[in-house]
Amino acid sequence: MAAYTEILETQQDGVLTLTLNRPERLNAWTPVMQAELETAIRAAGDNPDVRCIIITGAGRGFCAGADMNHLQDIQDDTGGAAETATASVERPAPAGLEKIYDGRFGYLYACPKPIIAAINGPCAGIGLVFSLFADLRFTTDDAKFTTAFSQRGLIAEHGIGWLLPRLVGEANALDLLFTGRKFTGAEAADLGLVNKSLPAGELMPHVQELATFLSTQVSPRSLAVMKRQVRASYFQSYTESLAEADVEMAKSFTTFDFKEGVASFVERRAPAFQGK
Amino acid sequence: MAAYTEILETQQDGVLTLTLNRPERLNAWTPVMQAELETAIRAAGDNPDVRCIIITGAGRGFCAGADMNHLQDIQDDTGGAAETATASVERPAPAGLEKIYDGRFGYLYACPKPIIAAINGPCAGIGLVFSLFADLRFTTDDAKFTTAFSQRGLIAEHGIGWLLPRLVGEANALDLLFTGRKFTGAEAADLGLVNKSLPAGELMPHVQELATFLSTQVSPRSLAVMKRQVRASYFQSYTESLAEADVEMAKSFTTFDFKEGVASFVERRAPAFQGK
Amino acid sequence: MAAYTEILETQQDGVLTLTLNRPERLNAWTPVMQAELETAIRAAGDNPDVRCIIITGAGRGFCAGADMNHLQDIQDDTGGAAETATASVERPAPAGLEKIYDGRFGYLYACPKPIIAAINGPCAGIGLVFSLFADLRFTTDDAKFTTAFSQRGLIAEHGIGWLLPRLVGEANALDLLFTGRKFTGAEAADLGLVNKSLPAGELMPHVQELATFLSTQVSPRSLAVMKRQVRASYFQSYTESLAEADVEMAKSFTTFDFKEGVASFVERRAPAFQGK
Repeated sequence: MAAYTEILETQQDGVLTLTLNRPERLNAWTPVMQAELETAIRAAGDNPDVRCIIITGAGRGFCAGADMNHLQDIQDDTGGAAETATASVERPAPAGLEKIYDGRFGYLYACPKPIIAAINGPCAGIGLVFSLFADLRFTTDDAKFTTAFSQRGLIAEHGIGWLLPRLVGEANALDLLFTGRKFTGAEAADLGLVNKSLPAGELMPHVQELATFLSTQVSPRSLAVMKRQVRASYFQSYTESLAEADVEMAKSFTTFDFKEGVASFVERRAPAFQGK
Repeated sequence: MAAYTEILETQQDGVLTLTLNRPERLNAWTPVMQAELETAIRAAGDNPDVRCIIITGAGRGFCAGADMNHLQDIQDDTGGAAETATASVERPAPAGLEKIYDGRFGYLYACPKPIIAAINGPCAGIGLVFSLFADLRFTTDDAKFTTAFSQRGLIAEHGIGWLLPRLVGEANALDLLFTGRKFTGAEAADLGLVNKSLPAGELMPHVQELATFLSTQVSPRSLAVMKRQVRASYFQSYTESLAEADVEMAKSFTTFDFKEGVASFVERRAPAFQGK
Repeated sequence: MAAYTEILETQQDGVLTLTLNRPERLNAWTPVMQAELETAIRAAGDNPDVRCIIITGAGRGFCAGADMNHLQDIQDDTGGAAETATASVERPAPAGLEKIYDGRFGYLYACPKPIIAAINGPCAGIGLVFSLFADLRFTTDDAKFTTAFSQRGLIAEHGIGWLLPRLVGEANALDLLFTGRKFTGAEAADLGLVNKSLPAGELMPHVQELATFLSTQVSPRSLAVMKRQVRASYFQSYTESLAEADVEMAKSFTTFDFKEGVASFVERRAPAFQGK
């Protein structure tokens, strides 16, 4: 594995866990952290031994947003610092789905593995935007969330203005953006911002169990195709989406995983998918 | 009425009930069932005596998905059998709304009558996709739902990748597609996948009361226009949708049903709409 | 302030309250009321002393829909009266966001201030459509809502066919449009049609507290940009939305409000935003 300075990387069976690791700063976002995450997720996407990715935070927070020191730098020296705020790794020209979602966090959508955010504590600003690009989100009942931008004189950054109304409806999106108020994980679950909130002690066991399930009980090939289908659908007519689904359905009938899926069902045994 | 072999058809007043009728197989989906449903719904669309359509399942299930025997055929003989899996009735070239939703279940959207799915038990795979094309969905608290595809090595079939995020939000859609897990009717209601879940004994009375209401208390003309407006709106700008609404509003002012709607309201009596 | 005959206008600090004022008719909608509202909201948009707008109803209702006397006129004299039903103030050619939402209530979206509907009682037909163009909606637990159209032989008027599925999902939208049934504020909150429902006595205090918060604790500049970002996003690709966000982010770094937002946070004091 690569040597990272602001994230941790651990792997157990098919599950890769990436941990934002600046706990003394509530894992506040930096250009280094951003580059390391992108590098790690791109590598995981290409690694056949990784079937599911968990992202969480070290210590008591998930990500407190852009590092305030860094924001003050921007204020002191507008231009250069602002530039690095969005700095990223060198990367190839985007293709396919990533072309549709080019920019900041599009690589999370382009990754063919399911990505679960385990939001273990404060989640603010760019940390919240980043988490919205995960496929599934779980949190604790009392984790604190905030968009934060309006209280700092900022705007709906990094695409959250596009994403948020699609996730929680327009009325809730405007509430969260306009007020920049703090809300709990329990409310986030009510709003549909996260899939579920749990008591603090149950978060990681729940997410790990789900990640293990996704790594062993369903076809990795199915997940990769489905993830692409859903994210592509927003820019397709129904007819285009259906035509693509029909092509993919016909292809799936010829795969090992389909044979294994039917056989394991008929034989009432656990499947052993190979992702092909 | 036509003679069907895998569905039942009954009519009472303006309400046509279509029952998937392979109870010994939990009404598992077959090409014959598909063709019969399409024929029956197209006929009901043209029949002025039908004002509302209910679709439900015989016995203890709604539809357990594609018949597994059939799926095994596909595996044994890829190509031909896969072809028949999507076979359909001969049909005219699509026009208007059906052109936008051409393919598999577009005829449900094109039908100018409200279609209610009464999901009385297990609802899986293609059975679930089919039900999503109904206008309204009701179920029992403990009915079992599953997308099923990922556990068989399949993909998001028949347009569910396009529909599901629009119905339950992206995070929930990816959960249900990725895991293929079973979930209850009560959870389906929480997610917004169905309009409401009820205790088992109350499902059909509730749906029948609603269908009777839609057949007698509101204008059939209004329903036909509204159904088209909503389904067309996804591919319209706001301005296009509003322009169409204004044309339709002006037309409605000249109809019998508008006169009857205002008169029955002012006279505090039940309306007698004629659909014109 | 202008002299209005069917609305009231009061201002306290940065909060402008517009009250539909035909209480003897449950504030039923008229062309005069429509023109006065548009005039008042356009003026508030240009007035630097207004930072937030509340719209509510006088007496026990919010807006009972189009005045039935007026609807009967339409029936007696189709054409001319129908014309005035959609009459509006003289207005400049639309630009920017208003061009996307041109027509009936687009001026509410184009207004750069947050608009909160405080739905204090019956809310029907065009009154409901109008409220959906507010940015945030609050109501009482027992306020009565209805789309009403289908029970009068009418259609999904004034763009509600486009808006409603985006706010409450397709299944709920079709339910409310097809049945024209009455539903309570509590159900409206469950459906996501309003942000929250409260006991009757708590509605106005809650809305006033929120409006005061939005007028004093967050940057007016941030709100104006965010409102535009969200409403524009429906007609943008993700990449377009992100590109616009990046331009706006860079601009915001140079503003007084950003400096003030960071400084007040670091100094743990209330901000004094200037909207620039």
